[in-house]
Amino acid sequence: MAEDPRIDGARLSRRLEELGQVGAIAGGGVARLALTDADKAGRDLVVRWMKELGLAVTVDAIGNGVGVRQGREDGPPVMMGSHIDTVATGGRYDGNLGVLGGLEVIQALNQAGVVTRRPLAVAFFTDEEGSRFQPDMMGSLVFTGALPLEQALGTAGIDGKRVGDELRRIGYSGPAPVGRPSVHAYVELHIEQGPVLEAEGYTIGAVTGVQGISWTEVTLLGQSNHAGTTPMSMRHDAGLVAAEIATFARRLAKEMGGHQVATVGFLTLSPNLVNVVANRAVLTVDLRNTDEALLQEAERRVSRRSLARFPPIAFDPVLVGRVEALASELGHRVRRLPSGAGHDAGILAAVCPACMIFVPSARGVSHNVEEHTAPADLAAGAEVLLRLVRELAA
Amino acid sequence: MAEDPRIDGARLSRRLEELGQVGAIAGGGVARLALTDADKAGRDLVVRWMKELGLAVTVDAIGNGVGVRQGREDGPPVMMGSHIDTVATGGRYDGNLGVLGGLEVIQALNQAGVVTRRPLAVAFFTDEEGSRFQPDMMGSLVFTGALPLEQALGTAGIDGKRVGDELRRIGYSGPAPVGRPSVHAYVELHIEQGPVLEAEGYTIGAVTGVQGISWTEVTLLGQSNHAGTTPMSMRHDAGLVAAEIATFARRLAKEMGGHQVATVGFLTLSPNLVNVVANRAVLTVDLRNTDEALLQEAERRVSRRSLARFPPIAFDPVLVGRVEALASELGHRVRRLPSGAGHDAGILAAVCPACMIFVPSARGVSHNVEEHTAPADLAAGAEVLLRLVRELAA
Repeated sequence: MAEDPRIDGARLSRRLEELGQVGAIAGGGVARLALTDADKAGRDLVVRWMKELGLAVTVDAIGNGVGVRQGREDGPPVMMGSHIDTVATGGRYDGNLGVLGGLEVIQALNQAGVVTRRPLAVAFFTDEEGSRFQPDMMGSLVFTGALPLEQALGTAGIDGKRVGDELRRIGYSGPAPVGRPSVHAYVELHIEQGPVLEAEGYTIGAVTGVQGISWTEVTLLGQSNHAGTTPMSMRHDAGLVAAEIATFARRLAKEMGGHQVATVGFLTLSPNLVNVVANRAVLTVDLRNTDEALLQEAERRVSRRSLARFPPIAFDPVLVGRVEALASELGHRVRRLPSGAGHDAGILAAVCPACMIFVPSARGVSHNVEEHTAPADLAAGAEVLLRLVRELAA
Repeated sequence: MAEDPRIDGARLSRRLEELGQVGAIAGGGVARLALTDADKAGRDLVVRWMKELGLAVTVDAIGNGVGVRQGREDGPPVMMGSHIDTVATGGRYDGNLGVLGGLEVIQALNQAGVVTRRPLAVAFFTDEEGSRFQPDMMGSLVFTGALPLEQALGTAGIDGKRVGDELRRIGYSGPAPVGRPSVHAYVELHIEQGPVLEAEGYTIGAVTGVQGISWTEVTLLGQSNHAGTTPMSMRHDAGLVAAEIATFARRLAKEMGGHQVATVGFLTLSPNLVNVVANRAVLTVDLRNTDEALLQEAERRVSRRSLARFPPIAFDPVLVGRVEALASELGHRVRRLPSGAGHDAGILAAVCPACMIFVPSARGVSHNVEEHTAPADLAAGAEVLLRLVRELAA
């Protein structure tokens, strides 16, 4: 008779620590840009762990790695996963938690002698970060058919090297068919990367979806004039208009409320001199909302030239509800929240029921060597992942 | 019996044209940075003209050139002048008009056989622009004793060369005592460098003084956060605060009205990325007013770290009134206005009655190869200069 499977938080933390040593940089961070030698070393370590846990590992032509554990029946597995590539100065948790949390679930089930009805899988998707090769979430986009394989393989990175060549170089251009196995459901455990859970005292976030994103670049042409000799009424100050747009974006987000956020993170003036009225300003407006209609309303009120646009994604409401219920049953404070960042789960949602489990990020810091999540929170997230996967695989 | 002296506008324009060929650059502009070979060539041409007109030319230790025309009596001359150095992409009028307008006045008096009671002088001051050596207005500052000679001579320029060495190299380290001759009154003819006269249909500006200038640099430290995952209420957005300051500066200038102007011409964000809330913003606020108390009020309402500060300068009210009256008598539309830019006349005002005569700048463009003033306006300015100088020298 199988015993009750239990998450070993210390073991999960040890794996995060060990993987964090691969490509480690000063300050406790990690640099494993996609398809570099460091990424290869990280992949090799994860694949070794997968095999030690008895998973059947396959790698497809875009380098996505999937480890499958047999169920009592055949059919599409319940998939856990995320990515193990990082930004240039990344942390140890972003992505890695979803993969290593999945391995911890497998190990807990193994130790308890539990075999689920459906197969289980743990996946790591290639180049989620997009720091070396654009677009980000490349592996999951190819996996779901949203990005043609040949286009992805031909993509040149910031160093001029191509995805296909680099995959072959590091030995991760695999023979498995792209997009296989079909997925029964996808669950991604991830750090929040924002401050909400910590600030409000929650341990678990039941992620309702991924915000839609709209990036707009605005170029303003004014007239360059002497800051002393030109009366205020005769100026055509591109910098002033840029500043007005930045403050307008803030007002817009506050007026619209809800999940609407607006950011002017990029702003340059020309000639950018203390005593010259700017004749040119370029700024970007980053608008995000979970509601497509509201996002479009915000865009109508701001937009000029669209740089990038992703519509909002809603996760499977049944799965979101189960995350919430299971976290509560385990005694954790849980709240629903959207994901502000893009994740592989948002891509997988196009082909199967998908959801995410968020755990708190200390001070909301991510994409930074100081990224941190308390070990107890990591374990709590893995516990929820374990229960949800068992339900889905039952 | 002396005939009535007359300004020859065509001759003035020809001299401006000829001096504009020295260091000419594409687009009709001029590059004669202070104490370069081009500046030496310009000086040589002006000195030759001075000597041809019978002026006794002296050069002092900071390279200021003064040509004196004897009066019927000895004593401090009435001085006309300006500068002939330019910015790197300068026009033909800025500065040059004051010097060559002075020569035109001398020539008109010569031809009419008029000898004034007081001596007359035409001066060109070294390094008014400050484009190669800081501070600007270096020659007139040394002339009036506001800047020690040794400090000026030791100043290294943007190319690392020193003022003293460069003066010797081009042969303009002269033997004349600095600050001599004493000046009875100083009158500077200059293009406006702003759009007011043209826009309002005036030919002559009776310059009431030089605006006080206050430059402030503001550094804002916020917190770098993900543009998607950080709710508006939890942001510390340095870029937003910078934008608020820029729009505040505009409001401040409009509220204060009068001659108050405020410019945010320099603004940089860090990390300056479309999807990252800025953690750092640096901007400058350029405040100018003709009234010191109002300028101080504006500074109190904005200031952080002062980069540069010059108090306002009021020109001699009697001379300003005479510019106005003489221009009217000659049938020109004339208005009073302050100078938004600094000029040698503002420095000379510390040691003698001083004033300026402005003529219109097409579209307010200056420090630019497109700088232009209509020949008729140039001649009108020279006419006023002639009358005023005759009165002052009488």
